Amino acid sequence: MDDIEEIKKLKARYFRFLDAQDWENYAQIFTPDVIFDTSGAGGERTTSRDEFVESVKNLGIVQSVHQGHMPEIEMTGETTASGVWALEDYNIYTDGSQTHGWGHYLETYEKVDGRWYIKTSSLSYLRFERSVGAAPMIAGVDRTRHLRGTRPAG
Amino acid sequence: MDDIEEIKKLKARYFRFLDAQDWENYAQIFTPDVIFDTSGAGGERTTSRDEFVESVKNLGIVQSVHQGHMPEIEMTGETTASGVWALEDYNIYTDGSQTHGWGHYLETYEKVDGRWYIKTSSLSYLRFERSVGAAPMIAGVDRTRHLRGTRPAG
Amino acid sequence: MDDIEEIKKLKARYFRFLDAQDWENYAQIFTPDVIFDTSGAGGERTTSRDEFVESVKNLGIVQSVHQGHMPEIEMTGETTASGVWALEDYNIYTDGSQTHGWGHYLETYEKVDGRWYIKTSSLSYLRFERSVGAAPMIAGVDRTRHLRGTRPAG
Repeated sequence: MDDIEEIKKLKARYFRFLDAQDWENYAQIFTPDVIFDTSGAGGERTTSRDEFVESVKNLGIVQSVHQGHMPEIEMTGETTASGVWALEDYNIYTDGSQTHGWGHYLETYEKVDGRWYIKTSSLSYLRFERSVGAAPMIAGVDRTRHLRGTRPAG
Repeated sequence: MDDIEEIKKLKARYFRFLDAQDWENYAQIFTPDVIFDTSGAGGERTTSRDEFVESVKNLGIVQSVHQGHMPEIEMTGETTASGVWALEDYNIYTDGSQTHGWGHYLETYEKVDGRWYIKTSSLSYLRFERSVGAAPMIAGVDRTRHLRGTRPAG
Repeated sequence: MDDIEEIKKLKARYFRFLDAQDWENYAQIFTPDVIFDTSGAGGERTTSRDEFVESVKNLGIVQSVHQGHMPEIEMTGETTASGVWALEDYNIYTDGSQTHGWGHYLETYEKVDGRWYIKTSSLSYLRFERSVGAAPMIAGVDRTRHLRGTRPAG
């Protein structure tokens, strides 16, 4: 149960660091050889941590919301596990467009030196909506600095 | 704690099988005598697994998103438990209409031969919105085949 | 792990009592000296349970939906813990306006006589939308009486 809870917190930080654009901590979520496949969601398939994080930074996202739900975590060995997560995401891009999606991640995890990492991840959408040029009210990334770091609540 | 985690995964599969329209696995979530009451949400009250699954298949849903949140699971015996779940659902119907709802399930569970099942469930909405004829962008159920089965992440 | 699960249920009840407008049980979620800071979300900073609950009652909310996600709970002592939660909320006010927000709570918890309470909480939004005068379809608080109380699912 402790491993399962650690994997849930790992994924919580994956979302929080992404939306807070805390790239240094975000990179620490993944194994160096992580395979991240968003080709089923209109994106790319990357084969290393550096390549993946760079691809996310280059999406042109002004503000994002990513919220995960309903984990199905299974231990597949002493230091390996798999997981399914539902996702809702809501993004604003530099060109003014917005996307709103609902989908799932299928993932595997690996424990190295007592810490869990995402080793593989693939994303698909049940439903995906795009709107162009709508004017959102945004709090902005500057107002999310307090969400950065591993333990922002102390 | 293991039982509670198993019940959470049971409910995760309830949602995933429903949205992936994986009806064979969906039926395995429930006891044969499950009472499912959606009368507080504008639906029916069914009194068997077969009747319930048939009623869901007949809703005319083209694509659905069901996401659960904030479980309150309580063990009420060695092989019985109760649970509260928050829900957000977003559905598209064959007539072009869409619904978007936010509500709660009140449920009980039973463990039979080491496996948990939903025994009773009732659904109500805090808020429910309906739109007619809007044109969504949909990934489509054909693209969710990889979500089927008990352990799609391996 | 039992403490972490209890804190998750505490927060689940925080949301459920709030949306069911079950104020008596809602007040029991907090320590008497709770500091609740919504100044980062356009609200107030209150310094007692009574002051906070009164401020929530005075928001003029006709119907609310608050859903929490992706907890990061950390034990910081035998009877203390911290937590991060993602939030989506969707509110209707007496003046006809609506708000839809996505943000995070940073919180601390205290265990007193075997029960957990929220001791401090601060809320910020990643994104916040306001619409004026839209006509929602609402189930209404009268239809949520069954959600009141500590164990509504039995």
